[in-house]
Amino acid sequence: MRFVKRRIMSPGPVEIPPETLAVAAQPGPHHRTKEFRTALKDALASLRFVTGTRHPMVPLAASGTGGMEACVTSLFSPGEEVLVTVCGNFSQRWAEIAEAYGLVVHRLEVEWGKPVDLKELAAKLRRHDHYAGVFTVLSETSTGIENDIQGIGKLVGPTPSLLVVDGISGIGALPFKMDEWEVDAVVVGSQKGLMVPPGVAAVGLSPKARERLGQAKNPVFYLSLARAFKAVEADELPDTPWTPPVSLLLQLRASLAALEAEGLEAVWARHARLGGATRAAVRALGLKLLATKGFSNVVTAVDCEGGPDAGKVVKALRDDWGISIIGGQGKLKGKIFRIGHVGHVDDLDVIACIGALEMVLKKLGWPVTPGAGVAAAEAAILAARG
Amino acid sequence: MRFVKRRIMSPGPVEIPPETLAVAAQPGPHHRTKEFRTALKDALASLRFVTGTRHPMVPLAASGTGGMEACVTSLFSPGEEVLVTVCGNFSQRWAEIAEAYGLVVHRLEVEWGKPVDLKELAAKLRRHDHYAGVFTVLSETSTGIENDIQGIGKLVGPTPSLLVVDGISGIGALPFKMDEWEVDAVVVGSQKGLMVPPGVAAVGLSPKARERLGQAKNPVFYLSLARAFKAVEADELPDTPWTPPVSLLLQLRASLAALEAEGLEAVWARHARLGGATRAAVRALGLKLLATKGFSNVVTAVDCEGGPDAGKVVKALRDDWGISIIGGQGKLKGKIFRIGHVGHVDDLDVIACIGALEMVLKKLGWPVTPGAGVAAAEAAILAARG
Repeated sequence: MRFVKRRIMSPGPVEIPPETLAVAAQPGPHHRTKEFRTALKDALASLRFVTGTRHPMVPLAASGTGGMEACVTSLFSPGEEVLVTVCGNFSQRWAEIAEAYGLVVHRLEVEWGKPVDLKELAAKLRRHDHYAGVFTVLSETSTGIENDIQGIGKLVGPTPSLLVVDGISGIGALPFKMDEWEVDAVVVGSQKGLMVPPGVAAVGLSPKARERLGQAKNPVFYLSLARAFKAVEADELPDTPWTPPVSLLLQLRASLAALEAEGLEAVWARHARLGGATRAAVRALGLKLLATKGFSNVVTAVDCEGGPDAGKVVKALRDDWGISIIGGQGKLKGKIFRIGHVGHVDDLDVIACIGALEMVLKKLGWPVTPGAGVAAAEAAILAARG
Repeated sequence: MRFVKRRIMSPGPVEIPPETLAVAAQPGPHHRTKEFRTALKDALASLRFVTGTRHPMVPLAASGTGGMEACVTSLFSPGEEVLVTVCGNFSQRWAEIAEAYGLVVHRLEVEWGKPVDLKELAAKLRRHDHYAGVFTVLSETSTGIENDIQGIGKLVGPTPSLLVVDGISGIGALPFKMDEWEVDAVVVGSQKGLMVPPGVAAVGLSPKARERLGQAKNPVFYLSLARAFKAVEADELPDTPWTPPVSLLLQLRASLAALEAEGLEAVWARHARLGGATRAAVRALGLKLLATKGFSNVVTAVDCEGGPDAGKVVKALRDDWGISIIGGQGKLKGKIFRIGHVGHVDDLDVIACIGALEMVLKKLGWPVTPGAGVAAAEAAILAARG
């Protein structure tokens, strides 16, 4: 077997640090032991730290979508009216889940590639002041934009609505301050900024959301947040209602400890630098960014209208250079490619990726000045590092 | 840090073979790649093999309880009448989930420590012939019994009811022939006989059950079996509707390949030998088995009425000898202890565990002839090995 050097530049699942991989190679404790529950306590404390909350969070054996469903079914009842800001494939999923569970969904449609417009949201909230919940997304992975959750929180906070945020692909990588920004429910996933393989979701709730828990009338069992919070809080050491994904949670503790050691502000600054360098390189190569503002520093979406064939770029990067980037989703399928820069990624990973992109574009016959993208990335990196 | 030799003799999560642990220490592929989907195809083929079915199975990012809920919500509608054979903590969970989703639950109550009585079940089915489903469990972990699923299948097969089996703790370790035994829906878990850390469930459906898929009126999204089967079957290579637990599924492929290499009949024979040796030892030590018939070869439950303090036995085995066994659950809490012998366990693991148990019993002041339990286990092992 030949050892292939993989470079994952997708917006998740991301590269797992070797130190975190090694954790899964060790025999783990039984999940009802003090040893495991102490590890879980540490992991949850770190999770609260990166999520910016003093309030408890709970782990779920599920992918991020399971965490989203847990919020819908545990906090809302059939017939309740909610507002979903639809700005891409993932924020649209909120609407699909809410409709599957009988909620009445109002949509604030946002052009894909743009963030939620606060004025439009304010107008919508003025016209209709009794939404049970407002659902949005921190980093919309399908389009590469970041929403202004702080601004949204200022609008929703004073209303009776719960502000529910999909933070799956953003938290850990992007600034997020749950309590300060008046977020009521947040979903986190393991396989993005938290640098752990997929299979763990986590949910945090504000006191305002906790009051709804147990009042919601949707049927719920496996993904019940009421059960999950009860198990986490019943004792000095946290527990789970069902068997937790032990190995993944031990890996979560390891990766979160690394984030804490780097320093949260430094982690955010690193992602901002990598996002900025990637965008500078894309522009310098004569390519078009899908977004025009509100860029997410988790992923950069390149609009291929009038440009190279998105599918061919993705395939050539993978086949010729072992780099995983990804194409478009939903209505952007075939129209864009996306470069992720989230998790265990550094400046030189971006340089290497842009270098490969230059060689791929040249091969595909796209007019490109070799080195122009890399030069722009280097300039952005040096300027940001100061 | 001192290296402690752990011996896991719990009925799950079980010891993970070092070869399977090592799989999680390697960088994995992105989940939408041909590489991962080929690995998933292999894992699902092996799963079908150990489950005894020619029909497709689907993986879920969930613990076993999530797989159980998927069967309830994807196959049944509120108001439908179902029969649950309640013979312990896990079969009782079927009733709890079914009630959470508005099914009308009838119970066939079985004394804890006994398997389902086929005559009683036949009588129940004669009196009421329109259950939408009959729910039972292969190996009831809380009491250490194995149900006669083949016999139950003969009774339910000719009726319109779906036979739904929790095979989480049994499949891989105990004989199970889904198609031949007319089982309509089965749930498998990763952390028992399949020798993988917790976090993956899998579901298999018969053609009779597949007809119900899509007709059921329960709200369902994340755990939708309709979505999961569609993703598995849409293409030549299987896919998943949501991000799958990549590292755990790669580990599943590795452990299942080891089971296939050992040979399924040989794996079942090994578990039968370990179960027999454990029961012989327990009896030789003057202790009482909770079950009187229908012993599960996954776990042996020891009734501590008039015997040693169950909690002290569990604690001393853990603290003095590094062996994890477990106490009782639900209404058997504090009344029994349970020795698991499932997964990556061999004859000498049982000998070591019984040796430790003898020393613990002596320390606790329980009258015991040192070596008597081990001698009985040895005799059972030699007789079974022939």
